[in-house]
Amino acid sequence: MLVQKYKDMLSGKSVIRELSEFATARGREIGYENVFDYSLGNPSVPVPQEFTDAMIHMLMERGTAELHGYSPSLGITGVREAVAASLERRFGLPYRREHIFMASGAAGALAHAFRLVTEPGDEILTFAPFFPEYNPYVNLTGAVLKVVPPDTDGFQIHFGKVEEMLTEKVKAVLVNTPNNPSGVVYSRRTLERLAGLLRQKSLEYGHTIYLISDEPYREIVFKGVDAPCVSAFYDDTIMCYSFSKSLSIPGERIGYVAVNPRCREAEDMVNMCGQISRGIGHNCPPSIIQLAVARTLELTADLTVYETNMELLYRELTALGVTCVKPGGTFYIFPKALEEDAKTFCRKALKHDLVLVPGDTFGAPGYFRMAYCIETEKVERSLEALRRFVREEYKEAAG
Amino acid sequence: MLVQKYKDMLSGKSVIRELSEFATARGREIGYENVFDYSLGNPSVPVPQEFTDAMIHMLMERGTAELHGYSPSLGITGVREAVAASLERRFGLPYRREHIFMASGAAGALAHAFRLVTEPGDEILTFAPFFPEYNPYVNLTGAVLKVVPPDTDGFQIHFGKVEEMLTEKVKAVLVNTPNNPSGVVYSRRTLERLAGLLRQKSLEYGHTIYLISDEPYREIVFKGVDAPCVSAFYDDTIMCYSFSKSLSIPGERIGYVAVNPRCREAEDMVNMCGQISRGIGHNCPPSIIQLAVARTLELTADLTVYETNMELLYRELTALGVTCVKPGGTFYIFPKALEEDAKTFCRKALKHDLVLVPGDTFGAPGYFRMAYCIETEKVERSLEALRRFVREEYKEAAG
Repeated sequence: MLVQKYKDMLSGKSVIRELSEFATARGREIGYENVFDYSLGNPSVPVPQEFTDAMIHMLMERGTAELHGYSPSLGITGVREAVAASLERRFGLPYRREHIFMASGAAGALAHAFRLVTEPGDEILTFAPFFPEYNPYVNLTGAVLKVVPPDTDGFQIHFGKVEEMLTEKVKAVLVNTPNNPSGVVYSRRTLERLAGLLRQKSLEYGHTIYLISDEPYREIVFKGVDAPCVSAFYDDTIMCYSFSKSLSIPGERIGYVAVNPRCREAEDMVNMCGQISRGIGHNCPPSIIQLAVARTLELTADLTVYETNMELLYRELTALGVTCVKPGGTFYIFPKALEEDAKTFCRKALKHDLVLVPGDTFGAPGYFRMAYCIETEKVERSLEALRRFVREEYKEAAG
Repeated sequence: MLVQKYKDMLSGKSVIRELSEFATARGREIGYENVFDYSLGNPSVPVPQEFTDAMIHMLMERGTAELHGYSPSLGITGVREAVAASLERRFGLPYRREHIFMASGAAGALAHAFRLVTEPGDEILTFAPFFPEYNPYVNLTGAVLKVVPPDTDGFQIHFGKVEEMLTEKVKAVLVNTPNNPSGVVYSRRTLERLAGLLRQKSLEYGHTIYLISDEPYREIVFKGVDAPCVSAFYDDTIMCYSFSKSLSIPGERIGYVAVNPRCREAEDMVNMCGQISRGIGHNCPPSIIQLAVARTLELTADLTVYETNMELLYRELTALGVTCVKPGGTFYIFPKALEEDAKTFCRKALKHDLVLVPGDTFGAPGYFRMAYCIETEKVERSLEALRRFVREEYKEAAG
């Protein structure tokens, strides 16, 4: 008598995982260096030395009870204070300790945010293209994820569709900027318009519609791109942050929820996160990792490689006649496939040892994602494979 | 429009937390060394040096991508293999990697176990005295925790009551041995009888009743005490383990679910844990901590101090005429209060700077818990306070 909904999930195959398995198998045949695996969003740059040094220093110098002891249920006080001070300094909003809840990565932060503001049956609205894990993350809480179709012109928000989907059942809107998979950063104009609409609808429905802002890529923004702070536009914003990408430590499961200090019930919401934790078994991210990120809050790994890779791919793809919105950040690009069915397109690419992910998974059929968090040298070598693929399979497009 | 059930929890006060806050405040007045704080179950002995050395060695020698990268969703393969091999060697059951799911401490392990086998409305049965966090852990899943009253003779299981409470609605039985708060270890006879009853009722009801075994105190067993492995008695056992107490690393949130290899659907259950994780935002315990515990699986901190403390307290309490079941493990003792209302008893103890926790919290009114995970020197000094307390407040009992 195991619970059927989880059992049923076992037969569902993840497209990304299957592709990654193909890449591994093919790598065994021809050498992994010859497989151009653009399937996985795993940070590829080294962790900053300061993080490693902070860990070693604490392990050598601190008493073990202090270092490895229970963290208070909202996070270590000094760590919450350091996070708040850093957010205030960077974004100009009056964050204090009481607005910060330390969480196990963005997944942990989102698990708390969804439970704060939705009951089973309530809807959360997000915008395609979107991170497909939002489906289980939301739907397994009992709430329902609804996806607004993409605005393919620039991968901002398709406001025409939002107005009709933002019904009374919607309790929260979930945004992800810089965006996985498009690499696009939402503009000030987009965020202002979204905030205005949420204020209007909150008033109309007589309940607050919360804005949940998933920001794991916040620190990966390319030169000259304006990446506005989502929380600055809308008081009822719940920021969900992860250090996975900024510090290249996705395995260490560390992030936070930061409730906008201007949100009327901010402090209660953070305290409620502590209660939610008890039901979902979190009970705080690892103590030593909390202490280590507090010492490296405004550092990042050397993220410049992602921009170098993006420029190489963007130039090559557009030269090949592939339609492509230029990413403003992240380590993803989301071009238009050269035939209607992106799944067929990606299958053909495999013959050229290019592992691309069809956009169907991200709610944008006809597009494909490349995760270019790989070595630049490999990106360079992949360009020839890209050219060969397009010329052989889509002669007319390549001209 | 925040979710009311979590908001309501904010006003609920934890007795243990209030007592601990009293101890801290009183410590500021008279010096913390003069407050005999027996309220909190925080491991007090140092982490084994091997754990610290393993961490430092990995930080110095390993590539950061390998060390801090994403763990597979069921846990790092080599870590799962090491856990399985250790369990097989120690308990003689054929554990393999596919029976192990790495989790964020026992709380994380239990969060997965409950969701594996219960739907909202189903019941989970546990036995008083019991760890009070089981209430939110279970009830926030939508299942319902039912508590069998204590067998106060020896704090084994009150089988007379079990038979009437083990109805068709019960999908799992939750045991905790060695037990918090009683310190008692369930005997072979108890486990055999429980297993027999579960087999009989499973057959009668036509569904498996799972046995969830919460074992954070497994390594803290005193000399001469037989602490049988729960899984050896019942095929459908889900073991939930934490390294918090054995390695003194409660802040690092590391443990595992080990499904009995003889359980018919063991492998599916572990895979289902990976799906459950997506909905509750776990996505694996921290990578570096997984790797470090795999290197120290059969080590423990020096746990002998807990037995020393227990002997001191047990001798003094019984000499003072306090009725007391001798603990077989853990760092708890659960004596009978010297008046009917243990809350009044514990309030009087505060006047003597003794911080004791009334048993009401643990489903056993009339008893009180002492967590003796403190320095032996302090336990020794507390004996005089205990004597004074009993003599002044309960002259007749002290004789």
